[in-house]
Parts: sequence; structure tokens; C-alpha cells
Amino acid sequence: MTKAIDTALIGVGNVGRSFLRILETKGERIAAQYGLAFRITCAADSSGVAVQPAGFDPAALRRHKEGGGRVSALDGYLPGRTPAEALVEAPVDLLLEASPVNLQTGEPGLSAVRAALSRGIPAVLANKAPLVLAYAEMHALAAANNVPLAYSATVCGALPVINIGRRDLVAADIHYLAGIFNSTSNFILGEMAAGRSYADALAEAQARGLAETDPSLDVEGWDTANKLVIIANSFLGVRATLADVEVKGITGLTAEDLRAALADGSTIKLLAQAEQVPGGYRLTVGPKAIGQRSFLGQCDGWEMGIEIKSDLYGIMYHKIWEREPLPTAAAMLRDAVNLLV
Amino acid sequence: MTKAIDTALIGVGNVGRSFLRILETKGERIAAQYGLAFRITCAADSSGVAVQPAGFDPAALRRHKEGGGRVSALDGYLPGRTPAEALVEAPVDLLLEASPVNLQTGEPGLSAVRAALSRGIPAVLANKAPLVLAYAEMHALAAANNVPLAYSATVCGALPVINIGRRDLVAADIHYLAGIFNSTSNFILGEMAAGRSYADALAEAQARGLAETDPSLDVEGWDTANKLVIIANSFLGVRATLADVEVKGITGLTAEDLRAALADGSTIKLLAQAEQVPGGYRLTVGPKAIGQRSFLGQCDGWEMGIEIKSDLYGIMYHKIWEREPLPTAAAMLRDAVNLLV
Repeated sequence: MTKAIDTALIGVGNVGRSFLRILETKGERIAAQYGLAFRITCAADSSGVAVQPAGFDPAALRRHKEGGGRVSALDGYLPGRTPAEALVEAPVDLLLEASPVNLQTGEPGLSAVRAALSRGIPAVLANKAPLVLAYAEMHALAAANNVPLAYSATVCGALPVINIGRRDLVAADIHYLAGIFNSTSNFILGEMAAGRSYADALAEAQARGLAETDPSLDVEGWDTANKLVIIANSFLGVRATLADVEVKGITGLTAEDLRAALADGSTIKLLAQAEQVPGGYRLTVGPKAIGQRSFLGQCDGWEMGIEIKSDLYGIMYHKIWEREPLPTAAAMLRDAVNLLV
Repeated sequence: MTKAIDTALIGVGNVGRSFLRILETKGERIAAQYGLAFRITCAADSSGVAVQPAGFDPAALRRHKEGGGRVSALDGYLPGRTPAEALVEAPVDLLLEASPVNLQTGEPGLSAVRAALSRGIPAVLANKAPLVLAYAEMHALAAANNVPLAYSATVCGALPVINIGRRDLVAADIHYLAGIFNSTSNFILGEMAAGRSYADALAEAQARGLAETDPSLDVEGWDTANKLVIIANSFLGVRATLADVEVKGITGLTAEDLRAALADGSTIKLLAQAEQVPGGYRLTVGPKAIGQRSFLGQCDGWEMGIEIKSDLYGIMYHKIWEREPLPTAAAMLRDAVNLLV
């Protein structure tokens, strides 16, 4: 009774390849437990898009990309087509959007999500840009076509912040939330406090595949701000954009700043905060000295976390340790399974 | 477009009264945001059950109980009927089961849930006993009648442990989990370590309405074991019962034991653990010395928490601070809303 789900994988970078690996290792379990068989019928990277109605072999596609191969070299390559153009007629039941974050145009993700939703194809996003640039439009399009749109992978990797906010805080008035949403900068800050150089720490983050393609997104605070914008729209009930967030990165910090904080019993973190104020929330991202023994002060290295204070649900604290892209890919899988079963 | 939901509230103790208070303060928001109006048409306590098809006034019912009044004194009282008997024909669209935990018979909750599910009425539980004693039967009955059964309020109050385990860890192989699931014993341990007497700390917990009606459930580890059994069945994939859990409480600990641990850099917590072993999990509950700086070592006082290590989702840590029954009641609300919308 397994149902084949023809799937478009837009973006076959670190997250996309991890998704393929999950299909290789967990395919049988997913079929047995949920009755679903994900079949990649459409794949795209920066070289273009390819369609194979019978499905690409996940392991072969992953190895092709890991070996430096491009989608344009695959059978089924459609010269000159964008992912969005291919999605208009490709045999696809599900879009997985994992292409790089592009805050200027949102492309190619934004058009791909538009194309899928317009055709009634459910969309699961790991790419934040379409939501950051066009949250309201994406949701209106999903509603108009009565098609699900899920994106728990966009905030804190596999930590289900969005799911908790949307499903588990029903009717809550959230007074305050604060979080560490970017593990690359969190790792760099920790390493710098321990005496390592900024460049060396950044290089390790990039080698692990966790840094954004454009590392300035991580260290200048924009990745953190992206996540705060998605949170604000998803469960704080405000239609915020990046322009509504005060953003400061960590590039101005020195090793001396970090050591001075430590000597003082505090630790400097790149903190996102939403504080309830009359008429809405004050949204900020920036380095902040917080107590070493506080929950977020203990969110170290490859961890990301959030604390949420509300009137009905006490104070909740959630964090995750992850240092590979696999959990983010798993978050796409859970979204896909939850919206299909 | 608000839909009235005729609701049976079985148990009008600390949690039940907090639910009534939420209806008083959040009724308009719930109607506006979710299109639902919960109307309590059936209420029960240890004195009996009463039915009012037009609905009890939530504030009046709450004040009646807070003033020491009993359900048997209410208009609509049905002499000699059990909640289960009343549920056979009362006008009810939803069961909220918040009666005291009874590990001997599960009553009156067990029969009430059976009656509701058999009639196709969705059930939301804060009472653990029906699940601990009859997890498989409850779920089989729900499946046979195609009716939802939700119980996120049974584990760690408002912390959505069950929801995270069931919805957010799709296809994961959980290697290990550990948690502090009973805030009464956690609070007592912390106070004893600080020099306060056991009896004094227990009295504060009882006054706050968080201790179980029978405090031996808290301090002898059975409440923690109940939650571990529900977790094991819900998302570890094992059909465990209390007989499968090694259980030890905190009553044998002395203030000296606690101080000695502190001097050693550790702290004693009443820990639930599930360790993956060949063929399943080893389930234990007992006092354990853990590092003061570890996540669960920092789960203090009125906090409960869990850490979950899996193959796909890294290591997740979740905790909550709550010291009143309100968040548990809010967890019933979220379950009800999520299964009705």
C-alpha cells in the first residue's frame, strides 16, 4: 500500500544531498511506517533542471553531485529551463525547495514555490528566502489553491521551533522570545572566546557544510534576522519584514571583547529577540552579553536554541545540537510526511 | 462562523478549574482565531456527574468548585450515574479527561474514555492512568471508531514532548532519552539540597496544586514512570507497561546525600531514562547524580525537561518552567483545538 510521491528536489547542495542519503538509508522504514515512497523525478542546481519521470536513483544522484557533477550533465536535462518552468508540467506531487538563500531576488526558490503552489503541489522549504521576501504572498497562494506549505526546516535546522509555535502554543500571548538561531556564528564566537582566530573558525564551519553559501549572511546577522522574520510571521501574528528588524552582526567583535565578557561571568551571543510592545513586537538581532549560566548562555558551539515566555505555557526552552546538514534535511522529511499522511 | 463544541469536563480539580479559567479569559480569542466555542455541557467530580445541555457558565462552575462546592450540588446532577454512564447519551462533542490518576483501576477516567471513543467522541486526556493501564486498548478503540485521541498534557505539563516525539522525529531511530518529568520531586530535591526539610517542601508543592492527589506518585517515582511508559508507547515503538520500568523514588535520599553530590560538582535528580538495547529499550526511573552544568543538571526547581538523541535529528533538549496547573490545562486546550480545526 505504498504511495509513490513524485518529488522535485530544487537544490542539491548540502541539505539536498543529505535528503537523498536519508532516502537511501530510511526508504524502507518510511514506506513501512508511513506508506510513502519519495521518488525524485525532478532535480535542479545552479546549472539547470532535469526531469526523469521514472525517478533518479537517490544514491547515484548524490554521488554524481558529491563528485562535482552538475545537473546539466544528467539524463533528462532541460536546456534553458528554470526550475519554475520545469515545474509547470513535470510529474511532481511534492516540491522540496533547498536552493541557496538569495535575499535580493529570492530566486530560483521564489518562482519555484509559486509554480508549485499555483499547480496545487504541496511545498516544503528549507530555503528561507521565499518566506522572508514574500511570506504573505506564499501563504495567500497556498490558501487560494488549498495546498499545504511547510517550512520547519527554515528555523534552527531540525529543532521544531515553527511547529511548536504554530501547533503547541494555541491561544498564547507571547510576551518575549529570544534565541540563538545561527550555529555558524555561535560556533565562531565560542572558538574566538577560546582564542582561535575568526578566519580559522569560519573555515571549519564552511567545511562542515553548515555555513550559508554567502557567509556574510551568517556573521552579519541576516540569517538570524531571516529566522526571526519567519517566526514573527508564523506565530507572533505580525507581518514583519527584514526592514522591521534592527540587525547587527558579530564581525565588529574582537577576541578581547569575548574574553572580557567571560571574565565578567557573562558570554557574548548573537541574540535574536522579540519583545512585546504596545501594538506589536520589537525585533532585534545583535551581539549581547548574557549570563553564562542562563539557558541561552549555555547554548554552545554547534547548538541553536530558543526560549519563549507566554501567558499560558510558562517558559519554554528548546535547543538542538547539530553540526551537519542531515538534521535540516530530516526536518524537510518530517514536514513532507506530516503533510502527506 | 463559530462552532459550539459541547464538552464534557471529567475532573474539576486544579487542572479542570484552570481550563475553565482559560475559557473565561481566552474564549473570545479562541472563537476569533479558531472558530471554536467550548461549552461545558457535562461536568464530573468525585461526588458525581451533572449535565446541562445549554452549558454551565465556566466562571460560575469554577467559583462553585473553588468555594468547596461539589458537582452533586449543581443543577443537572444525575444521582447514581458515573461519568461513563452519563457520556453514553449526554450532548457531548469532546471529552476532556482531567480526573485524578488512579493506577489501580484507572477509574473513573478509563471508563469515561472508553465511553467517549466508543461513541465517536474525540478524547483529550490530562489523566495518565487510562494510557498507562491500557495504552493499546485506548488506541485500538480510537482507530476502530476513527476518532482522535490526544494527550500531550499527560507528559511534562505544557511541554509538547508527545507532540515532538510523534510529529517532529519522523523516521528517527532514538538511541537514548532522559528526562526530569516530575516537578514536585524536582522542586523537593532542590529545596532539600538548600537545607529545607522534605515535609516543608512537599507542603509547598501541594499548596500550589501541582502535587498529585496521592503524593507518593510523585516522590516514589510512579508519576515519572507513568510518563516514561506513555513516551515509550507513543514514540519509542515499544508496548511497555509499568512492569517494564525499574522504579526507585526519592524518599530514601537524605539531605546529606544531596549536599555530598553538590560538593562533588554534581546534583541528584529523579531521572527517567530510555536506553536503546538489542530488541528494545531499557527503561529506568531513579535518583541519579549528574553534572551540575549538564542540561538536565540545570533543570531546576519548577522545571521539567527531556533530552533526545537520535540518528536523524541531532540531540534535542526541551524544558519548561511552570509552577501552576494552568499550563497543563492549556495543553488540553491546544490538543482540543488541534484535533478540531
